Amino acid sequence: MKEGKKSKIVVIGGGTGVFTVLSGLKKYPLDLAAVVSMADDGGSTGTLREEFGILPPGDIRRALVAMSHSDNRLLSDLFNYRFEQGGLRGHAFGNILITALERVTGSFEEAVEEAGRILGVGGAVLPVTLSSVKLCARLQDGSIVRGETNIDIPKHDGGLRIKKIWLEPKATLNNKARQAILSADLLVIGPGDLYTSIVPNLIVEGAKEAIKKSKAKKVYVANLMTKWGETHSFAAKDFIQAVESYVGRGVLDYVIINTKRPSSQRLKHYESEFSQFVGTQNLLSKPVPVFGDFLRRQGFVRHDPDRLAEVLVSLL
Amino acid sequence: MKEGKKSKIVVIGGGTGVFTVLSGLKKYPLDLAAVVSMADDGGSTGTLREEFGILPPGDIRRALVAMSHSDNRLLSDLFNYRFEQGGLRGHAFGNILITALERVTGSFEEAVEEAGRILGVGGAVLPVTLSSVKLCARLQDGSIVRGETNIDIPKHDGGLRIKKIWLEPKATLNNKARQAILSADLLVIGPGDLYTSIVPNLIVEGAKEAIKKSKAKKVYVANLMTKWGETHSFAAKDFIQAVESYVGRGVLDYVIINTKRPSSQRLKHYESEFSQFVGTQNLLSKPVPVFGDFLRRQGFVRHDPDRLAEVLVSLL
Repeated sequence: MKEGKKSKIVVIGGGTGVFTVLSGLKKYPLDLAAVVSMADDGGSTGTLREEFGILPPGDIRRALVAMSHSDNRLLSDLFNYRFEQGGLRGHAFGNILITALERVTGSFEEAVEEAGRILGVGGAVLPVTLSSVKLCARLQDGSIVRGETNIDIPKHDGGLRIKKIWLEPKATLNNKARQAILSADLLVIGPGDLYTSIVPNLIVEGAKEAIKKSKAKKVYVANLMTKWGETHSFAAKDFIQAVESYVGRGVLDYVIINTKRPSSQRLKHYESEFSQFVGTQNLLSKPVPVFGDFLRRQGFVRHDPDRLAEVLVSLL
Repeated sequence: MKEGKKSKIVVIGGGTGVFTVLSGLKKYPLDLAAVVSMADDGGSTGTLREEFGILPPGDIRRALVAMSHSDNRLLSDLFNYRFEQGGLRGHAFGNILITALERVTGSFEEAVEEAGRILGVGGAVLPVTLSSVKLCARLQDGSIVRGETNIDIPKHDGGLRIKKIWLEPKATLNNKARQAILSADLLVIGPGDLYTSIVPNLIVEGAKEAIKKSKAKKVYVANLMTKWGETHSFAAKDFIQAVESYVGRGVLDYVIINTKRPSSQRLKHYESEFSQFVGTQNLLSKPVPVFGDFLRRQGFVRHDPDRLAEVLVSLL
């Protein structure tokens, strides 16, 4: 890491992947920002989008909590608290907070900033776009699926591959997200569901250009598990290829590849979802594969935040 | 005001009356606390009580906002923001926040303290009791009305006087409220709806004794307007007599009496509610009447926070 000015890392993604990366990186003295997908339309977020016409707060909330400091444990718990009764049932408190702040300030961006101040977050959480969009996908049989949740939890049998993915209406890159990408020292893409958390950022107009133009080192964190209906039978090289098809070939400098296989007992839980451990065969020399054991020690088969952060910081 | 240690003022009441007193007093360098009624069961508060079994957050929220500093304008607006759509419709954001904090901390008291920290409130807001209670009233025809809202907005014709008021089940004074009352230099009771905002504090077991035992100067702020179904045709002396019937005769040192009559145009708005300007005739010499123009210059016929605070601080 360079001396003097803090290095700037910008994480691009959505869902629990962004949470994992940020919660590891926040322990380092970094200038940290997250560019977060605005495609989510399910659950508490979906209800609030529908009822209030706001941008989706869910991934924003997760990124804010990930960046909050541990002495704010109560506030983190508060942000993630889900009501279990009455008219509030199912809503995460943080989503309600962002919604109320959007109403009071009249601006989703300001709402996110203010929520970050309340939570005492050092870094910035930036919506990838300020346009309200719907994620759409065309499957290999030509049928079209609309809505992130419908793509995420396929209503079709899930055996069909996604051929194309786009946003309706077209959306442009949030200017603050562009600035963050352009001024970054390291860009981290992923991990996360390819078509529902990662690609929704990359297909925003101007994102590809900003990523390409940025002088930052660009790292992709390959997923640990495949996802039925999105990336079944994908190996790491397929994930890389898919991301490169959106950011351009040769743009990625590194790819983080986990080589530690989870126990068959841990993998057993994934069988019912037809989700498999991602293979690491046939990788090319560019992007440079960075191999290692990045596996969380127990529970869900996910990246360990600290091991992942350590390797990312080492690339600075 | 004494030099050195800050003088301690404790305000006892509920609803907009507490808001008025606190929002004036907060501009002085005081050790400020509010002891707040736990009888409210209407609107957003009532729904949350019913669905979550929590203590009523509404009056707590109003007191917190009253004590927040003006540089927290956005947060005050946020706390008072009322949702207008969907399952959240009608809820004040601050009520939802207090509910979520109660769930996360497991304690209503902690929830209120934490909400105060988020809002950057200097003083303390103390529930008068930590027991969940229902306010009940017997009218002069012997009929019994249960629930603060039913008493506040009479379903009967409102022409019947309240003969007796009590809490079900019996409730004891919150220990922190007792400590605040005992250590106060000045106790301010009112203004506010007599039977639905003021008396619900005084009938909590231990409240009368604590008020009597406290070395504080005790001030009652008489209401400006009568209220149909509660205090119709009351003069200031009737308000005083009613409060003394709960705290004990001779306990009150001063009573703040507004002598400025609002314009007939302003009073006209109150005619439909059979609400009248409170007369100041036949006052006794104890509690000492402190006469003055304490009327807000426009809008609702309410006390002016700054004029009221000025006279209260002068009594220290």
